[in-house]
Amino acid sequence: MKWEIIGYTAACLTMFGFVPQVIKMFRTKHVKDVSILMLCQVGLGIFLWLLYGMHLRNSIIILANAVNLATIFVAIFCYCYYRRRNKALEVVKTQVRK
Amino acid sequence: MKWEIIGYTAACLTMFGFVPQVIKMFRTKHVKDVSILMLCQVGLGIFLWLLYGMHLRNSIIILANAVNLATIFVAIFCYCYYRRRNKALEVVKTQVRK
Repeated sequence: MKWEIIGYTAACLTMFGFVPQVIKMFRTKHVKDVSILMLCQVGLGIFLWLLYGMHLRNSIIILANAVNLATIFVAIFCYCYYRRRNKALEVVKTQVRK
Repeated sequence: MKWEIIGYTAACLTMFGFVPQVIKMFRTKHVKDVSILMLCQVGLGIFLWLLYGMHLRNSIIILANAVNLATIFVAIFCYCYYRRRNKALEVVKTQVRK
């Protein structure tokens, strides 16, 4: 039972692992230092885990990776949105200075 | 065999998932937008996975999580180092301006 709790805790912590990063992106609206390559690489890895879980018909692997993939999608969306927005703001600032 | 390749590819991608973030930290020397809570949460989750893998005596779970944990440790170290360094630099800049 003790080991099951450790396993479930581990699964929960990693499943929602990118949630703090998404919250930070929302709060600060800055994403410059975040690696988009990390988000894409982990996203692709989690997607393949999801396929592998479907192949094994293991509902725990499917659920954990589906939730994780959803948060990574949100993180990638936030990254692209704020990156574009901040670049546009910089252009406006430069033009105002001129 | 096809599904084994998918499983191993998934494991490799997620195992080295934080490497692009560490490389970006090294290159830019800026970490302000990275969530330290994300690194600590995933780090703790991976550590518990490692313990769980040791309990199951599953060498693949142990190896994958040990490598992942090592890269997360490097990421946390880089975060703390550059965060401190950049704050010190800001203090120096403020004093020079005065």
